[in-house]
Amino acid sequence: MRFSEGFIAVDWGTTNRRAWRLEPGGAVAAEMEDENGILAVPEGGFHQAVAQIRARLGDLPMLMAGMVGSNRGWIEAPYVPCPAGLPELAARLLRVEEEQAAIVPGVAFDSGDLADVMRGEEVQVLGAYAEGWIGADAALCHPGTHNKWVRLEDGRIAAFRTVMTGELFNLLREHSILADLLETPAEPGPAFESGLRHGLDRDDLTAELFSVRARTLLRKAPREEASAYVSGLLIGADLKVGLRLAGEGEIVAMGRPELTRLFCAALAAAGRPSRAVDGEAAFLAGVRHIAELVR
Amino acid sequence: MRFSEGFIAVDWGTTNRRAWRLEPGGAVAAEMEDENGILAVPEGGFHQAVAQIRARLGDLPMLMAGMVGSNRGWIEAPYVPCPAGLPELAARLLRVEEEQAAIVPGVAFDSGDLADVMRGEEVQVLGAYAEGWIGADAALCHPGTHNKWVRLEDGRIAAFRTVMTGELFNLLREHSILADLLETPAEPGPAFESGLRHGLDRDDLTAELFSVRARTLLRKAPREEASAYVSGLLIGADLKVGLRLAGEGEIVAMGRPELTRLFCAALAAAGRPSRAVDGEAAFLAGVRHIAELVR
Repeated sequence: MRFSEGFIAVDWGTTNRRAWRLEPGGAVAAEMEDENGILAVPEGGFHQAVAQIRARLGDLPMLMAGMVGSNRGWIEAPYVPCPAGLPELAARLLRVEEEQAAIVPGVAFDSGDLADVMRGEEVQVLGAYAEGWIGADAALCHPGTHNKWVRLEDGRIAAFRTVMTGELFNLLREHSILADLLETPAEPGPAFESGLRHGLDRDDLTAELFSVRARTLLRKAPREEASAYVSGLLIGADLKVGLRLAGEGEIVAMGRPELTRLFCAALAAAGRPSRAVDGEAAFLAGVRHIAELVR
Repeated sequence: MRFSEGFIAVDWGTTNRRAWRLEPGGAVAAEMEDENGILAVPEGGFHQAVAQIRARLGDLPMLMAGMVGSNRGWIEAPYVPCPAGLPELAARLLRVEEEQAAIVPGVAFDSGDLADVMRGEEVQVLGAYAEGWIGADAALCHPGTHNKWVRLEDGRIAAFRTVMTGELFNLLREHSILADLLETPAEPGPAFESGLRHGLDRDDLTAELFSVRARTLLRKAPREEASAYVSGLLIGADLKVGLRLAGEGEIVAMGRPELTRLFCAALAAAGRPSRAVDGEAAFLAGVRHIAELVR
């Protein structure tokens, strides 16, 4: 498999996928995005799902990362244990399709009672480091369905922890008794900061969620503030866990801008300096560096 | 409206309803249960839904409690503020259907930032007190979709707080990434106690939920223990909130036996004495005493 003459990079998640055709010099020549995440691919359907991408972006080698390598994806790729850097990922690529495609392994953290796994975020985090956007020793959060807090040491992922913030917010908005209160988009502001403060300082999350409903019913809080408050509450509980892992200093928030914006607002309200790094740019940096390591 | 010649008592919840025909002396002559909770009743359909009950149990006055009196139910019944006893509930019955039916009001707690509401549990708690099954000053929990922790003072509900334990467990089991791990019924035992301990002692619930998945993927914990662990974890977080409200001494766990059993196991593991009181018997005691107060 040779990536030196251009390749297709794929970030293949649970509910959607993005792909880019990279020219030999690394420039993006074309891209696509659709909702054919791994859950939308029928059993035995990955060969065809990959062919769709090639039909749109060209017949090139492919480098894939994300849930495509999970036990619900195409083929289960192994986890690289922490500390994990780009050389460790590149050395453990899982070749598929007669060497015409490769899946980047995930990363596992396993220490005593603590255990965690990631697939996809490692490419972004290590790509940003390889590109010089973050230092060799850094603390990051990567908000999404499952927010990852990551400690980078000596240019390698040394420890991380996942918080189910995004998934819980979605479950509450789609299926819970709070559903009708959570239709409003959650924006930073006083209600968000009030929820954040509660989540950071208190330990009664599963009760406070119901209090949001009660305060609305008793007209102690306007219903249009509930969504921002609940978002702040969940992110506050998230920061409480993450800041313990992160230690002192700046936090880099990496990922989709609409989410890093919320987390940077939360970190500012919690008195922590932060900086956003675009997840797409970091992913492309990561796959380019992996491609160079295996060429 | 006269209840002295027998009546039908209805505990009408969100997802199901139970009804009993009580003879003039208070004995149960017949009963029914179905899944026509308030969410299953179409708009404008309560008159007919009530007629169904009468068709099965007899043409008698009806005394109803629960979510039937909520803003999603038949007619919104007011909340009685704490402290609330049976006399306050009886004085604020909401008459409907030309005095042939009445809805017991809910109870609201409103103090500073704290706010909470209940509908249905108040009849059970105050019924058990009126019957002498619990003292005038007592601490209770009432597990269910929304667990209620209640402090009874001088025979009245003085304060309470709702924890969304049951609903969160159901959301996780039905819709989350943990769904396939939570199919096993949650039983007391070592995994339950381990989760309980974590929930009681730590404040990282939204992260620990993902750790359950990671430990299973990394084969650090058997997948058949995940359900009991998550149940223990959520109940531990619940107890942490509730025991602050409850203060010292015995906790009475009231409600459905399969749930009070789990909570009594959790309280025992947390070193707190507890006793279960059957929710159905307490409900019937409550409606009988309310009927006497208005006859």
